[in-house]
Amino acid sequence: MKALSKLRPERGFVMNEVPVPSLGPTDVLIRVEKVGLCGTDHHIYAWDKWAQQRVKPPLVIGHEFMGTVAAIGSAVRSVQIGERVSAEGHIADLTCLLCRTGEAHICERVEIIGVDRDGAFAEYVAMPEYNVWRLDPAIPDEFAAIFDPLGNAVHTVMSAGVSAKSVVITGVGSIGLMAIPVARAAGASAVYAIDVNPAKLELATRLGADETFLATDPGVVADVRRRTNGDGADVLLEMSGSGSAIDTALKIVRNGGRAALLGIPSDNVNLNLAELIIFKGLTVLGINGRRMFETWYQTQALVKSGRVDLRPIITSVLPFADFDRAFELIESGTEAKVVLDLKGDLAK
Amino acid sequence: MKALSKLRPERGFVMNEVPVPSLGPTDVLIRVEKVGLCGTDHHIYAWDKWAQQRVKPPLVIGHEFMGTVAAIGSAVRSVQIGERVSAEGHIADLTCLLCRTGEAHICERVEIIGVDRDGAFAEYVAMPEYNVWRLDPAIPDEFAAIFDPLGNAVHTVMSAGVSAKSVVITGVGSIGLMAIPVARAAGASAVYAIDVNPAKLELATRLGADETFLATDPGVVADVRRRTNGDGADVLLEMSGSGSAIDTALKIVRNGGRAALLGIPSDNVNLNLAELIIFKGLTVLGINGRRMFETWYQTQALVKSGRVDLRPIITSVLPFADFDRAFELIESGTEAKVVLDLKGDLAK
Amino acid sequence: MKALSKLRPERGFVMNEVPVPSLGPTDVLIRVEKVGLCGTDHHIYAWDKWAQQRVKPPLVIGHEFMGTVAAIGSAVRSVQIGERVSAEGHIADLTCLLCRTGEAHICERVEIIGVDRDGAFAEYVAMPEYNVWRLDPAIPDEFAAIFDPLGNAVHTVMSAGVSAKSVVITGVGSIGLMAIPVARAAGASAVYAIDVNPAKLELATRLGADETFLATDPGVVADVRRRTNGDGADVLLEMSGSGSAIDTALKIVRNGGRAALLGIPSDNVNLNLAELIIFKGLTVLGINGRRMFETWYQTQALVKSGRVDLRPIITSVLPFADFDRAFELIESGTEAKVVLDLKGDLAK
Amino acid sequence: MKALSKLRPERGFVMNEVPVPSLGPTDVLIRVEKVGLCGTDHHIYAWDKWAQQRVKPPLVIGHEFMGTVAAIGSAVRSVQIGERVSAEGHIADLTCLLCRTGEAHICERVEIIGVDRDGAFAEYVAMPEYNVWRLDPAIPDEFAAIFDPLGNAVHTVMSAGVSAKSVVITGVGSIGLMAIPVARAAGASAVYAIDVNPAKLELATRLGADETFLATDPGVVADVRRRTNGDGADVLLEMSGSGSAIDTALKIVRNGGRAALLGIPSDNVNLNLAELIIFKGLTVLGINGRRMFETWYQTQALVKSGRVDLRPIITSVLPFADFDRAFELIESGTEAKVVLDLKGDLAK
Repeated sequence: MKALSKLRPERGFVMNEVPVPSLGPTDVLIRVEKVGLCGTDHHIYAWDKWAQQRVKPPLVIGHEFMGTVAAIGSAVRSVQIGERVSAEGHIADLTCLLCRTGEAHICERVEIIGVDRDGAFAEYVAMPEYNVWRLDPAIPDEFAAIFDPLGNAVHTVMSAGVSAKSVVITGVGSIGLMAIPVARAAGASAVYAIDVNPAKLELATRLGADETFLATDPGVVADVRRRTNGDGADVLLEMSGSGSAIDTALKIVRNGGRAALLGIPSDNVNLNLAELIIFKGLTVLGINGRRMFETWYQTQALVKSGRVDLRPIITSVLPFADFDRAFELIESGTEAKVVLDLKGDLAK
Repeated sequence: MKALSKLRPERGFVMNEVPVPSLGPTDVLIRVEKVGLCGTDHHIYAWDKWAQQRVKPPLVIGHEFMGTVAAIGSAVRSVQIGERVSAEGHIADLTCLLCRTGEAHICERVEIIGVDRDGAFAEYVAMPEYNVWRLDPAIPDEFAAIFDPLGNAVHTVMSAGVSAKSVVITGVGSIGLMAIPVARAAGASAVYAIDVNPAKLELATRLGADETFLATDPGVVADVRRRTNGDGADVLLEMSGSGSAIDTALKIVRNGGRAALLGIPSDNVNLNLAELIIFKGLTVLGINGRRMFETWYQTQALVKSGRVDLRPIITSVLPFADFDRAFELIESGTEAKVVLDLKGDLAK
Repeated sequence: MKALSKLRPERGFVMNEVPVPSLGPTDVLIRVEKVGLCGTDHHIYAWDKWAQQRVKPPLVIGHEFMGTVAAIGSAVRSVQIGERVSAEGHIADLTCLLCRTGEAHICERVEIIGVDRDGAFAEYVAMPEYNVWRLDPAIPDEFAAIFDPLGNAVHTVMSAGVSAKSVVITGVGSIGLMAIPVARAAGASAVYAIDVNPAKLELATRLGADETFLATDPGVVADVRRRTNGDGADVLLEMSGSGSAIDTALKIVRNGGRAALLGIPSDNVNLNLAELIIFKGLTVLGINGRRMFETWYQTQALVKSGRVDLRPIITSVLPFADFDRAFELIESGTEAKVVLDLKGDLAK
Repeated sequence: MKALSKLRPERGFVMNEVPVPSLGPTDVLIRVEKVGLCGTDHHIYAWDKWAQQRVKPPLVIGHEFMGTVAAIGSAVRSVQIGERVSAEGHIADLTCLLCRTGEAHICERVEIIGVDRDGAFAEYVAMPEYNVWRLDPAIPDEFAAIFDPLGNAVHTVMSAGVSAKSVVITGVGSIGLMAIPVARAAGASAVYAIDVNPAKLELATRLGADETFLATDPGVVADVRRRTNGDGADVLLEMSGSGSAIDTALKIVRNGGRAALLGIPSDNVNLNLAELIIFKGLTVLGINGRRMFETWYQTQALVKSGRVDLRPIITSVLPFADFDRAFELIESGTEAKVVLDLKGDLAK
């Protein structure tokens, strides 16, 4: 089958031929139809420091996808051939304390497809039955292909708890942007977005942000406090991973508020813990992945309700073969989310 | 001053002259401008069994209101003359375990204005500073006048937790109706309303219910399950107080779901606790009043967000003097919420 | 192999020869060493109304047990031959909303071993790998054999939340008795036990109850209130299933308190919901089974800490062959928990 | 009256004569009987950088105390002359969002007695009625005098939630030491203490720590993991305020665990947020003061249960006049908690 692979320790991907994955008794083989490009994929494409340390070529990349079940292992009971599915890309060990207490998403021995083992940017991908998510017919293919990053946004929003609360989102890359309609649909009474990029802030407004602020504006802390009765925001969703954004953001959140950190700082962060966290009585939540499968149910419920419209976020849909152009678009900084379509392309 | 009073143990109210209330050092005198009529007021008007046991005439009635601060006691610090306010009508003792741990709304020694002591259907009412709520300018007078019952709806919705959840409301009297836009604004992914009255169900649809069901329809349990992937609703908001509604409603909520009970049954209820609560692993919440003042902040946030529009619920606004006509309207069963206006009336 | 079976729809069990269970790829075969007798087993032994409706002979009975892994299916990864194990006796479908969101214990399609399918009172039992619990070496065999009912007690205590709280337990059968040291170890500041049986109350005192009360004492509500600053108990653990006990118990718990219901009423219960639950702002929790596997981890942690000593509860340990005498003892009403030993017996 | 005062911006305190505080209508005058010395008092005594920035002499110092009500304001209802009391030393504004939603302990406009306004190391102190805590007769005077720091320990333990969990405490100064019996009484299944001071670790063992570790031991992370099934501790209580201790401690807590930070770092802390908090899915809680008055009720319940014995912590009780010797003892580093007795002394 065709697959998008990292073959050598250098920039770029190659479309090559690899064997169709073999199936164990509890595995499901999925014919891939649409995939989403993630920042992680681009790290591997660009072969940056993180990728060099983590990824061992050769590797089929990709973890955001949807498709149709093509075959099932002998012990699979919950999925049938022909069903439309997506899947959780974190393969947890399912035997540890975390996996057995509803926290498989932070299993210490987790492997991520397209990073630690072969991924989904291929005609077929094999997934454990446990990881497969049967798609509700009401979910469009494009949205289904990006349930993974949408799930990051939903997990962050739902962990923080936004019902009847004012929410600040720092960093509106694709997940930060998704978090805007998710937070509104989940009950936020006001959503403020902060970023360094004015184009992203415009998109934030289109997606439902009540107001947006440039991160470089020195008055941003005071501005948000003014809009929140002088108290500060109830909830922070940190999605930039920038140390200075985290510092500012923790100033914006009110005493007793909740701060969910999803953005991944590339270096250590130097913080005044006393003033920013301890005296304020903050609750700070580290957010990783998505809950299996509470987040998936929540994501489905929110999308089905019609209140999370992802169309403004999917800025390009390209044929699978155009992957190089897709990564060029991502590098241009103008895209929110790029989706690749394998159906039309592979029919050629 | 003029006041609407229960003077004798019989049906009806009388508009009479009573002294303006005196002020203690921690009290606030409020010039009343708009009031809301509650089912409780009608119980006292009609002088039913409950009213005969609880109410001791003579009594100024009423507890839903808004107005302007006319005078303050010597020790009052947080409110100024001229401010636009509403107030929490439950006067708690503020010294017991419950009051000192954030649960004053269920203080065992609470007194309710207009029921246990003189109320707000008068030119002036005196309230402890603790109970006064300063109104945000964005809140219209009519909405402010009914923050008390709206707060019941908000407290029920927020206690249950509806973010990304399917919600069933049984009983759409005025509080049940309010709970519909509140639940949607607070993040419910779907809201289903059930009642015996088709006119109320029409109003429920106008207020944002995704679907409505007649309580007499024998297929209602199966219908809601079908719309919730066969699982049943995540959350129940019981607002009818009817024993048979509670029995049906507990069948509709899914295993592991949450049921918030606000409706007050007039008699004991006969329940199959094993099948309806224990085996299902339900969480059942008794709901009383509103949290002081978490609920008030939530109510303000939701109304300010523009996502809780109460206009379809306020079916009549009448001059204060027309109180008898107002109770006639209520007895006709066609009204959702009736508001009386003291300003125009008393200017006469 | 030898097994204790219900062969015909009549009182009693028979020790008979049945085939050793066959193993699927994800199953584990366990050589049974010690088993605990449950009230459920006695219902089936006595062939009462419940048993006649639920149980379809022939059936190997029993669900409380521990033993050693004798064989594993081809896909089993987390358990090895020779390991000492117990197992969760609820076989959930693992594919529904509840199973996929950490609530497999209330899966609608659960099957219980020894009730709905062949059970553990046999030389061997086959369990899905998912259900197997590897025993810490610090857990004695007798305690391991009754991790199932101990887990009921732990799940009830932990769901209610007892840390720094006063706790009332109504009904001190074997699970109610276990709940006493569990509640103390889990942080209860005071534990009060109520029962109709003075002998059980004596045992309650030995197990650490601060004070005990006869359920027939008309002053019990006032007595507990007096010991709790006049407020009532913070937490109720209802383990009797008696309608009148539930009525009394809900009077004892304070406004805003939490009531966990584990005892199963045999009939409908007639309750003043308004006075007992709604006005009080109670949280009522239906409790069923044990959380997989949060409860098992908690149980292990509590037993390993040395703070939950079950020895006073295990009132008899008999050879497997003496099962009829064991059920006689249970019918005598003097026993707390009876354990059967298969090792010595089957070596004969 | 006699008072212990900071009169000039220099090291030391002076025992001087000051007027008995005047009483407002909602104030309570308390005859002080026993006081506890806090690290904060020592900062002011030593006149370090923090004290120089925060404290404005002249000031009566001290905030840990108990005594007897000597007079009450005209509007005081809940306290009577002659009652034995302690008091919350944080004077909150009681009108802001935080104060009105049960979070007065993190009110932005809080003033602390003995720091921002005159304190309790005097014959009399005046406190708002709201702040006064009536003491249960079962609480000994010495324990009552230190309910303030004990409340810090209780608030940290209860916020983290320790029931059936393994707990690591980093830093066993007086509050860290108190946290040991508190955590055990509140339900911890295991308590591990880490400090740089072997003498404090010995005291930790006497107070019930299961095991203690020198912070300088490079194997401490691995050691605790080994004792917790390889997972790491469920809960961290950080009470050292040391940046390197926080770094180590966050490595010790398991994925999905909870970390409560009470210790106050004197400088910024440089953290690998990605590895220590985000990927691990930690919940980090900033802890400040004590909840009014939930923590006080919990503290009373725990002490009354007999399971929190503070005697090993109160290492010296001296007459009030010996305050200089008391601070010398504190500076020697050998003391856990020093209490001063005003009764005997002032009778001289």
